[in-house]
Amino acid sequence: MELFQYYAPTKVVFGRGAEEQTGELVRACGGRKVLLHYGGGSVVRSGLLERVKASLDRWGVAYVELGGVVPNPRLSLVNRGIELARRESVDFILAVGGGSTIDSGKAIGYGVANGGDVWDFYCGRRKAAACLPVGAVLTLAATGSEMSNSSVITNEDGWLKRGYTNDLSRPVFAALNPELTMTLPAYQTACGCADILMHTLERYLNGCQTNLQLTDALAEGLMRTVIRNAKVLRETPQDYPARAEIMWAGSLSHNGLTGFCTDNGDWMTHKLEHELSGMFDVAHGAGLTAVWGSWARYVSARRPERFARLGVNVLGVEPGAGDGETARQAILAMEGFFRSIDMPTSLRELGVNPTPAQLEEMADKCALAVGGTGGSVQKLNRDDMLAIYRLAMG
Amino acid sequence: MELFQYYAPTKVVFGRGAEEQTGELVRACGGRKVLLHYGGGSVVRSGLLERVKASLDRWGVAYVELGGVVPNPRLSLVNRGIELARRESVDFILAVGGGSTIDSGKAIGYGVANGGDVWDFYCGRRKAAACLPVGAVLTLAATGSEMSNSSVITNEDGWLKRGYTNDLSRPVFAALNPELTMTLPAYQTACGCADILMHTLERYLNGCQTNLQLTDALAEGLMRTVIRNAKVLRETPQDYPARAEIMWAGSLSHNGLTGFCTDNGDWMTHKLEHELSGMFDVAHGAGLTAVWGSWARYVSARRPERFARLGVNVLGVEPGAGDGETARQAILAMEGFFRSIDMPTSLRELGVNPTPAQLEEMADKCALAVGGTGGSVQKLNRDDMLAIYRLAMG
Repeated sequence: MELFQYYAPTKVVFGRGAEEQTGELVRACGGRKVLLHYGGGSVVRSGLLERVKASLDRWGVAYVELGGVVPNPRLSLVNRGIELARRESVDFILAVGGGSTIDSGKAIGYGVANGGDVWDFYCGRRKAAACLPVGAVLTLAATGSEMSNSSVITNEDGWLKRGYTNDLSRPVFAALNPELTMTLPAYQTACGCADILMHTLERYLNGCQTNLQLTDALAEGLMRTVIRNAKVLRETPQDYPARAEIMWAGSLSHNGLTGFCTDNGDWMTHKLEHELSGMFDVAHGAGLTAVWGSWARYVSARRPERFARLGVNVLGVEPGAGDGETARQAILAMEGFFRSIDMPTSLRELGVNPTPAQLEEMADKCALAVGGTGGSVQKLNRDDMLAIYRLAMG
Repeated sequence: MELFQYYAPTKVVFGRGAEEQTGELVRACGGRKVLLHYGGGSVVRSGLLERVKASLDRWGVAYVELGGVVPNPRLSLVNRGIELARRESVDFILAVGGGSTIDSGKAIGYGVANGGDVWDFYCGRRKAAACLPVGAVLTLAATGSEMSNSSVITNEDGWLKRGYTNDLSRPVFAALNPELTMTLPAYQTACGCADILMHTLERYLNGCQTNLQLTDALAEGLMRTVIRNAKVLRETPQDYPARAEIMWAGSLSHNGLTGFCTDNGDWMTHKLEHELSGMFDVAHGAGLTAVWGSWARYVSARRPERFARLGVNVLGVEPGAGDGETARQAILAMEGFFRSIDMPTSLRELGVNPTPAQLEEMADKCALAVGGTGGSVQKLNRDDMLAIYRLAMG
């Protein structure tokens, strides 16, 4: 008896000015004193932080601030946040930023609501029993953390990047204003689009023999929408409708919808990338596209019909050539899309050049992180991972 | 500043045996004593009710029973349920059945959690401030009530059928076991498929000029899936994968996803049907298909491009003939689909033959229900409604 769960309780408020609702949303979720968590300068410079504070003030919500989140958010800041939130009797985490800030906020939420070392959850030593409620004002469409149950933190001690997944951390609300993403550098926008696409792709290319037609149709519709609008944004970064498409796609891509009733997907591209960005601090989206094609070539013979279907239904590949050949063309077409938005398709294009010893180290760490073997299209062991990293050198 | 909301917090447990989780799900949502609400014989005969009770027992959840829900559920039973639930200090409503049972359960939930006459909410005299938590074990894929915020009740005093929409009533969980729908009569299965299709169609055919591409893609994928699998079930009622497709489509079709960032759709087919089934007690899904084509012909000139898009992207109509002609073909194709699953496309085929006075009465009531005018593709007044009812006579 196999049961599937879908649980996406986040209340989404979407559109221009959504951030003005923050105070009301926090209050509706029972928050009285929030940890206002954010990254660096742009949230301050753009005036967003002030607007959010004004909204909190209007609704009588007290706050303490903790800025300084960096991409691939760090455990040390999480620990400072836990301490601060405890000292200040915070009852709500409000993340204003992108996925790194939300992930960091979730980690703080776990830390405050449970005793002991929060890293325990990320390295699988124990499970969280609770999490402070987390709300998000999103400034970057990418990770889907605003509706997801996952959080990824980097431990500077060994530069280990690890994720923890638990429904307790699904944000209670997400304020999504596509305008807030308009001033992003083109590279970050493209990285975000790549990440969004990959969240569905990781689920869609799976080892499950009984995928729902409905889940496939939703996944394909989402991927086509991301591909179309990522190209629009490369040419016209200020296109509000395209920003809106990408932002909503980002939330739906990682909230469970596009993997419903599957085996939950493969995720090895993500695992391989985590070691890359853990070691070289590259942008997550770019790291994903840099390794995806090599992963795909390595494993596609196990499910050529899924790769072929991706090609025909999402990438405009002509059907009829047989699954193997269509799969090959699908991988080329996907890489062509990545290049069309200036995303790398190899480590060389990503700008990193690991030594042979570093490749081995990444493979070791990756195998460790997945408990020896991982993946659903094809179960990969440490040697498979090393082979894919080598293929990805370019 | 227009803001859109998406809020679908229901925890879905999906697959064979999902009902075995009922007790655990109720407890996880804080329920200690439930009103076990259901309809008639099949839930008892099939053994489902006993399995649900056993699950409640295993988890130490007490219950009182209230059966007897009928299609187009009645206010009188709702009032009995409110009285019973109050007397027994029930803290959770557990609906085991189809949409009528869940809708009736939501109404009881409003009644218990608020003072005064529960009908007030349905006729728009006041808004609910709370609702007891509602959980659902679904036996019929159709209304989407298991994830929706709406509930439709018929007041026998005047046979007024009215809906009330409030996020407070979104079920906290839904146990979805496609097997439970396998023994449905073919007519009920087809009515359910029609209802599911219509929940997305009502949203998709709208007056909004800025529909999200993503919402359209999801809606089209869902409608194609329903059409394909409704045909499978006509031939092979015991096809589990097709039952699963239809069941999940039913939940997604009415949880807000396929109308996100639109003007929330037209809904006049539903409003016109409510008067039909209020007066003649016909099956809701059949009532919808009986009037849809007439509504579509009456209004399609206002948004021929939407109807044309429906034809091309969902119904396999060849593009290229111009929006007006493609729209005409789309309406014919949709009616062809309805007939292919033995659903009526006119009142005559539905088996009702209203007198001219009854047509006038339905138009009067329908106009009253929508506050004079209603609809988004085209605002319809009482005379428009009468004209559509007359067209639908067949």
